Amino acid sequence: MKSLIHSDVLFPAENSIRSIAQALYKTVSDLPIISPHGHTDPKWYALDEPFPDPAQLLIVPDHYIFRMLFSQGIRLEDLGVRRLDGSAVETDGRRIWRLFAENYYLFRGTPTRQWMDFVLSNLFGIDEPLTAKTADKTYDLIAEKLALPEYRPRALFKRFNIEVIATTEGALDDLRWHKAIRDSGWDGRVVTAYRPDAVVDPDFEGFSANLDQLGDMTGEDTGSWTGYLAAHRKRRAYFKSFGATSSDHGHATADTANLSDQEAAALFNRIRAGKSDLDDHKLFRGQMLTEMAKMSLDDGLVLQIHPGSRRNHSPTVFANHGRDMGFDIPGRTDYVSALKPLLDAVGAERDLTVVLFTLDETSYARELAPLAGAYPALRLGPAWWFHDSPEGMRRFREMTTETAGFYNTVGFNDDTRAFPSIPARHDVARRVDCAFLARLVSEHRLREEEAFELATELAYTLAKKAYRL
Amino acid sequence: MKSLIHSDVLFPAENSIRSIAQALYKTVSDLPIISPHGHTDPKWYALDEPFPDPAQLLIVPDHYIFRMLFSQGIRLEDLGVRRLDGSAVETDGRRIWRLFAENYYLFRGTPTRQWMDFVLSNLFGIDEPLTAKTADKTYDLIAEKLALPEYRPRALFKRFNIEVIATTEGALDDLRWHKAIRDSGWDGRVVTAYRPDAVVDPDFEGFSANLDQLGDMTGEDTGSWTGYLAAHRKRRAYFKSFGATSSDHGHATADTANLSDQEAAALFNRIRAGKSDLDDHKLFRGQMLTEMAKMSLDDGLVLQIHPGSRRNHSPTVFANHGRDMGFDIPGRTDYVSALKPLLDAVGAERDLTVVLFTLDETSYARELAPLAGAYPALRLGPAWWFHDSPEGMRRFREMTTETAGFYNTVGFNDDTRAFPSIPARHDVARRVDCAFLARLVSEHRLREEEAFELATELAYTLAKKAYRL
Amino acid sequence: MKSLIHSDVLFPAENSIRSIAQALYKTVSDLPIISPHGHTDPKWYALDEPFPDPAQLLIVPDHYIFRMLFSQGIRLEDLGVRRLDGSAVETDGRRIWRLFAENYYLFRGTPTRQWMDFVLSNLFGIDEPLTAKTADKTYDLIAEKLALPEYRPRALFKRFNIEVIATTEGALDDLRWHKAIRDSGWDGRVVTAYRPDAVVDPDFEGFSANLDQLGDMTGEDTGSWTGYLAAHRKRRAYFKSFGATSSDHGHATADTANLSDQEAAALFNRIRAGKSDLDDHKLFRGQMLTEMAKMSLDDGLVLQIHPGSRRNHSPTVFANHGRDMGFDIPGRTDYVSALKPLLDAVGAERDLTVVLFTLDETSYARELAPLAGAYPALRLGPAWWFHDSPEGMRRFREMTTETAGFYNTVGFNDDTRAFPSIPARHDVARRVDCAFLARLVSEHRLREEEAFELATELAYTLAKKAYRL
Repeated sequence: MKSLIHSDVLFPAENSIRSIAQALYKTVSDLPIISPHGHTDPKWYALDEPFPDPAQLLIVPDHYIFRMLFSQGIRLEDLGVRRLDGSAVETDGRRIWRLFAENYYLFRGTPTRQWMDFVLSNLFGIDEPLTAKTADKTYDLIAEKLALPEYRPRALFKRFNIEVIATTEGALDDLRWHKAIRDSGWDGRVVTAYRPDAVVDPDFEGFSANLDQLGDMTGEDTGSWTGYLAAHRKRRAYFKSFGATSSDHGHATADTANLSDQEAAALFNRIRAGKSDLDDHKLFRGQMLTEMAKMSLDDGLVLQIHPGSRRNHSPTVFANHGRDMGFDIPGRTDYVSALKPLLDAVGAERDLTVVLFTLDETSYARELAPLAGAYPALRLGPAWWFHDSPEGMRRFREMTTETAGFYNTVGFNDDTRAFPSIPARHDVARRVDCAFLARLVSEHRLREEEAFELATELAYTLAKKAYRL
Repeated sequence: MKSLIHSDVLFPAENSIRSIAQALYKTVSDLPIISPHGHTDPKWYALDEPFPDPAQLLIVPDHYIFRMLFSQGIRLEDLGVRRLDGSAVETDGRRIWRLFAENYYLFRGTPTRQWMDFVLSNLFGIDEPLTAKTADKTYDLIAEKLALPEYRPRALFKRFNIEVIATTEGALDDLRWHKAIRDSGWDGRVVTAYRPDAVVDPDFEGFSANLDQLGDMTGEDTGSWTGYLAAHRKRRAYFKSFGATSSDHGHATADTANLSDQEAAALFNRIRAGKSDLDDHKLFRGQMLTEMAKMSLDDGLVLQIHPGSRRNHSPTVFANHGRDMGFDIPGRTDYVSALKPLLDAVGAERDLTVVLFTLDETSYARELAPLAGAYPALRLGPAWWFHDSPEGMRRFREMTTETAGFYNTVGFNDDTRAFPSIPARHDVARRVDCAFLARLVSEHRLREEEAFELATELAYTLAKKAYRL
Repeated sequence: MKSLIHSDVLFPAENSIRSIAQALYKTVSDLPIISPHGHTDPKWYALDEPFPDPAQLLIVPDHYIFRMLFSQGIRLEDLGVRRLDGSAVETDGRRIWRLFAENYYLFRGTPTRQWMDFVLSNLFGIDEPLTAKTADKTYDLIAEKLALPEYRPRALFKRFNIEVIATTEGALDDLRWHKAIRDSGWDGRVVTAYRPDAVVDPDFEGFSANLDQLGDMTGEDTGSWTGYLAAHRKRRAYFKSFGATSSDHGHATADTANLSDQEAAALFNRIRAGKSDLDDHKLFRGQMLTEMAKMSLDDGLVLQIHPGSRRNHSPTVFANHGRDMGFDIPGRTDYVSALKPLLDAVGAERDLTVVLFTLDETSYARELAPLAGAYPALRLGPAWWFHDSPEGMRRFREMTTETAGFYNTVGFNDDTRAFPSIPARHDVARRVDCAFLARLVSEHRLREEEAFELATELAYTLAKKAYRL
């Protein structure tokens, strides 16, 4: 049987380009995976328990999948997505899987299809196309494999050739699973990342209580601006002790601020006193990005900013199923004005690394590449989220390289909670980058030996260097 | 003589892609035309009279053509475009045609050139390039053909293999030509579409009188909000009785509203009392999109929204020649915020179909694909107007497919009043889609049998299904 | 040794496209250079002195180069970029060159790399890749050549086959170097262009004194609106006497205004009296674009508008090194509303040429092509600045041609002060345009003989015609 994944997948058809791409890819396909930004659950690595049934592993938690099915009229309940009101949803993995398989054709042309075929083929040895007909057989094969010891999280971690993976934890997380991993003596390298949304965004649920808790955890007075900053510093140090090399910030906009200490303290006091308005909250979020950047100058954490998502766009889905249900919709995002206050403060620093992401591709050539191609503190994160796809990655390179070059980018991020898909995602990125380099070589815009160097940089070295891993 | 249209036109040069594209195209090139959205004149099909001279048919009414010539310094009067003040314009078809032919080189690289060559070659059997030299001969050949019975509207309708075509009529139209078509017993399927701009936009000329007329036509009290809504329902039912399966809405923005009944009634009363301001008008237009969507839930009409055009940009041209003279210029268009009120109300409905169009390609990957890839009620209209072109269609697929897939799109719309060009326009769309699919196959991102299925879906089935035809 | 520049550089790999591109390129590669917009120093042509050392010629003044190096942590001082405070910077050309050579790999994939390799190879006969190892040897070879008479400005002008080049001078410039060129009897055609920023922008440093000086130079009363306009007319005439065929306007936005004479005079008086605010200043800049367009109707100067740059984005770099240090960052730019007042006044004029540039590619297909494809007064400037690059030029053609055609564009501008790179820049543009035309031919969208005509139009004729040179 032919493999679901052709050995030349994603390489251009033109012969001379394809053969260069093949040669480049050969040198990077087996490089270890550096995953500096993602959302896998550290508990998996800590407990090393078997993964649940195929549907619970591959369908139910994947908003790429249930979003597309929902868009075509399939009920989320029938896909096993839990309801906030606790009313019944489908729990039979096989029935969920069948529903997915019947509708798998909807994913034609999407990266989800690419990743899923890769997982079926490379991880589970299945090379028959997934359809209504093959659904049960496929389900059984996967279920069987998941019961085997070599399909437990740690075994897969090794099999996937992951050199290091970062998870993401909130500032108030006790990092117990990271502690458990360390205490277990297992040699897989799993690091955390500092995500302080709950304690830097005054609009976050329970913000005030969160700050109290932050004070309790650190022994600092989070009723005062200086105590609050000190508490952040302590948490960052704690996260660093579990391997963190970065912090992570997802705001609706890229707005930053550059207030004086006095102004910032006054703003903080207004918020703590409950006398602030929405403009204050926005200003505070912006100021905290700049504060985090200043702390990064001291402690070396890489600052990641990924703005632009309008979260929970559908009130119906939000009411029924809660957050992160595939309804985070991008909008226009300004960087050139929004980032100026932060850049005024720290943009010229050579020891700081701020990684910028976007959901608005119009900013690639117009704003992000010119900014990253000028400010020493800036680097461009890879094509991200809706753009973590072959065409998206190609556009990223075509629109950023001529102004920012390759070396102001940071390699690939998988950014996923879908652990089994991690090798697929890195494979797609490596192939697309090799195809891009091959085109440059074939058009004599790059020498072959340079392309080989770059292939490794893009697949491995840049991520390691930029994230200080 | 070589044909003006090469059999491989619009297929990529690379051999393996081209041969897949050829094979795909072969299966769709002869499929019937589904034209669910357009602006041909139902009178043509009703009366079946011969078309006028070549210039009056092909040049004078086509704003793609006279706009480009005007942009290069040719007077609209010399092209036969009538003036509002009734002063003289060129009426000699042959002279207009000569002027066009002399300047035909200006259209190099444009879809107009592609369509016109297709019409000359496939419809009129002319395969000599159109130039000043060949102008007269070409004119004579076309004029001769237009006099033949097989060049009358109904004969062309059959020749073009049109399975169904939609025209567009205003809410106050009596649909007399549609009635005449029906009464004639002719078996060509021509349906109408409900375009209520004149009675939903308070800034429309004669809005108040239009509402009175709407009341007269329906026997409803359009002085009250409930009567006004009831009048719409009656008109929609009347349009449905002439085959309508859709309504059509072209606003300057995609703004929608989701007012309570009470608020909506109060707004309506303010407007009817002449006590409203421009913000009220905008709000009313937005509310009416949501009202139309709610009516669609009841009567099944597909709701089409195509915002973003700044109409009649040149006051000089508007004063001299009136509306629709090629000076409708696109601008930035927001969807993610603008549509939220409508989507809050009906976005999760599975029995509703809202087709979104855009003139702002930056919204494809950033907003439209994520929205259509999540909300069951949404589908994406094809690359439209300035983007109804080979590069425009390619970008549409490249920027929407990875997030929305193919099945959240609705096939092709020709959207034209240029009847002779309809086969050309569908042919371009079919070729470009086949080329896109061929690239995916050649890069092993899609299996060949899937591409064959999709080719038919994109050329025929999706339009039929989405528009419930 | 292989040349650093392959003879097929920038041509697509696919054989049939490449061979058409080669054939097209062969007919344009040796055409004379028309450079209608640029920033070379007329003093060079006037004095014809040898250029300084390699680093002072090729590195220190080139913000494309030092910006990229700075973005990767290299100090501008180490690259010889002078500080405003006069403190020491590197002055040893060889050390600067070595630093550049060591880091030359950072430019992989950028047009800077393409231009520099072209200069090394075609101008200096160097075909060994530039690296740390070859730095000294390369430096010596260039230095040696620069001492030769055939490397002086006038000799290079001839060698570069420049038919005409435009420089850019401020409205208050006495054009002494242009006078010196004329007086020298040298037959190279060097013309000026009228750049009145200092006397049309109330926020410009010394605006009021500049207007006084403008009055002194022209004998007009620049205290009055009519005198001020008369002074502009006189300066434009003076510039025309030194060959100027264009004026040049770089504002932060494309905003224009269309005030009555009375309103404009009142605005001018407010500004002159020091009683204006920032909105007045913006309005005045916009009004002056319209005034310049009206003067162009009289004197025939081509009006160039290139908005969208946020100048001097980094206050640190601005404080240390001043203006034009690579920190002019683009932002979103609106045209369709911003230009309306100017177009209302003069857009339908057939004897006016307004050339529009952009740094915001999202405007190509959405706004600029529809505007230029409709208004007789408008033409599109080429892909510009950050987009003066292979991918940028390709996107320009792909996004503008289908709506505006080729004939509403104006050929290539090098827009550079880097004299040695001028042939490289024109060569890139010619190759990319030939590749684009070749693709159209290979896809049967254009006949071969048309492509040959267009290749010459794009490389030579359109620039000459549009700029009336």
